[in-house]
Amino acid sequence: MKKPLKVTITGAAGNIGYALAFRVAAGDVFGPDQPVILQLMELPMTMGPLGGVGMEMEDCAFPLVHDVVLTDDPKVGFRDTDYALLVGAKPRTKGMERSDLISENARIFSTQGRAINDYASREVRVMVVGNPANTNAMIAAANAPDLPRERFTAMARLDHNRAIGMLAKKTGTLPGDIKRMIVWGNHSPTMHTDLTHCTVKGQPAMSMVAEHWYKDVMVPTVQRRGAAVIEARGASSAASAAASVVDHVRDWFLGTPEGDWVSMGVHSDGSYGIQEGLVYSFPVTCQAGNYQIVPGLEVTDFGKERMKVTEQELLGEREIVADLL
Amino acid sequence: MKKPLKVTITGAAGNIGYALAFRVAAGDVFGPDQPVILQLMELPMTMGPLGGVGMEMEDCAFPLVHDVVLTDDPKVGFRDTDYALLVGAKPRTKGMERSDLISENARIFSTQGRAINDYASREVRVMVVGNPANTNAMIAAANAPDLPRERFTAMARLDHNRAIGMLAKKTGTLPGDIKRMIVWGNHSPTMHTDLTHCTVKGQPAMSMVAEHWYKDVMVPTVQRRGAAVIEARGASSAASAAASVVDHVRDWFLGTPEGDWVSMGVHSDGSYGIQEGLVYSFPVTCQAGNYQIVPGLEVTDFGKERMKVTEQELLGEREIVADLL
Repeated sequence: MKKPLKVTITGAAGNIGYALAFRVAAGDVFGPDQPVILQLMELPMTMGPLGGVGMEMEDCAFPLVHDVVLTDDPKVGFRDTDYALLVGAKPRTKGMERSDLISENARIFSTQGRAINDYASREVRVMVVGNPANTNAMIAAANAPDLPRERFTAMARLDHNRAIGMLAKKTGTLPGDIKRMIVWGNHSPTMHTDLTHCTVKGQPAMSMVAEHWYKDVMVPTVQRRGAAVIEARGASSAASAAASVVDHVRDWFLGTPEGDWVSMGVHSDGSYGIQEGLVYSFPVTCQAGNYQIVPGLEVTDFGKERMKVTEQELLGEREIVADLL
Repeated sequence: MKKPLKVTITGAAGNIGYALAFRVAAGDVFGPDQPVILQLMELPMTMGPLGGVGMEMEDCAFPLVHDVVLTDDPKVGFRDTDYALLVGAKPRTKGMERSDLISENARIFSTQGRAINDYASREVRVMVVGNPANTNAMIAAANAPDLPRERFTAMARLDHNRAIGMLAKKTGTLPGDIKRMIVWGNHSPTMHTDLTHCTVKGQPAMSMVAEHWYKDVMVPTVQRRGAAVIEARGASSAASAAASVVDHVRDWFLGTPEGDWVSMGVHSDGSYGIQEGLVYSFPVTCQAGNYQIVPGLEVTDFGKERMKVTEQELLGEREIVADLL
């Protein structure tokens, strides 16, 4: 039997964490023959509900779960961890300025970055889900100087999957028929959905939809999808966010399919003119826990313009948190 | 590619339904190469939130999901369905008598039984999760005269899994080390956990725990586990209930492992002296959508007594709903 992987989930009693933990436990991320030890973290004041999550985890009798650790101590939660899924974040409350939200989360993620640096496995992979995810990932990496920054990534997969789902519906096809989707930039309403390399059953997507639908319907709909789900459901998109974490980590761990790529928030190496060091969503291919930004794709003028807008937003966020970098 | 299975989930915008729908969509129940069409049902007043669930389902771009139908119409929701997972039920509200709860749900499940009889696939399998699950399953079957009553089952797996989890923890083993657990009777606090045939790493479980622990700690703890989770988590055990539905349906569909069995609420054929026609949890083996009650197990006097108590409760429930049978 394989050695168990240690998987840390922060905010594990929150809605996304709750949806995610049971899917990891069921083998949806690391496969049906890979045991896991779950290290579930919460804030001190949320340890009560986390105890309930731990009870339920025990009650599932998952064959792959070799242990469940419940803690509010980063030393314990990140100890020797192989995968750190940073879901917990301070949400924006009424009257809070966006810059305050960014600063408050920056403090949380700098602390977590240091703890990962000090306690995690030297092979650790980190995925940030808590918003602002891209900037939080940049801060965590900057506070983990002993680890390569390539180990720190941010969720763009929810936007990527939303774009695939929307295009499949529009073209009357199935999600599996759609390849080479891209969502560029920040996991925020400035993100840019790019269909110019996308194919539907092997045909160029742009030959199957009107340019006006793409620019004026699809791009803004994907940008605002999170708010639309909240309005319909009366709660945030926890299950689909968790499903996107599953997809992101599974593909990073097991590899992307031949001939396709995924969108992941990763440190820019200057590709596509995006400022080096920002965590920006690029199309990437993955293999065995490593990713590579897909090189040399042509970008239209419309795309360049939109990619700059979302880069500018990330540069603005970086300024706000400069003291923690 | 395989033909998609149609899977109906009632109460799909509720907590258990929400946790369950995404696990079915991810392939956790029917396997990674079996496409599904999800037919998600809600009450008319909950169609708004169900719309949000449908958006999230689309947003996941699940490769196995070939269509998602959202409806409050049983004709549409049960049409040609292969698996009907009846999760939705009227919950007990403050001041409501248990007999009122049973009667109100009896009306819901008799209607659903008739709709399944009239519209579902002739090969349909039905699992009832909504409480009182055993009696609801009996009523649904009684109102579906054109279908064999063996197609209607009730959830006991949550209790079964809870018992395995608790014993694994107590004995310092893993859930996969534990075989031949039994939970007999009603999915209610009268259920009876039976360790007398259970093994831990091939050794008799009763040789590894004190009889007093089994009778005075384990049996009542499993009985009251649901309430304990609610107290800790501040919400009901949605994810572990959904995980148990996944296990129940997967094992029914794909078969139980050689040498082991599971607990399922099924129509009594008089086995073990349990009154014929009650839906009662027995140890069963499954193969390709059929189950067989494990015959000829020895039952201790303690077990016989406890099995009678839970049978009596089910007989009492049957009296309350006699007009719908």
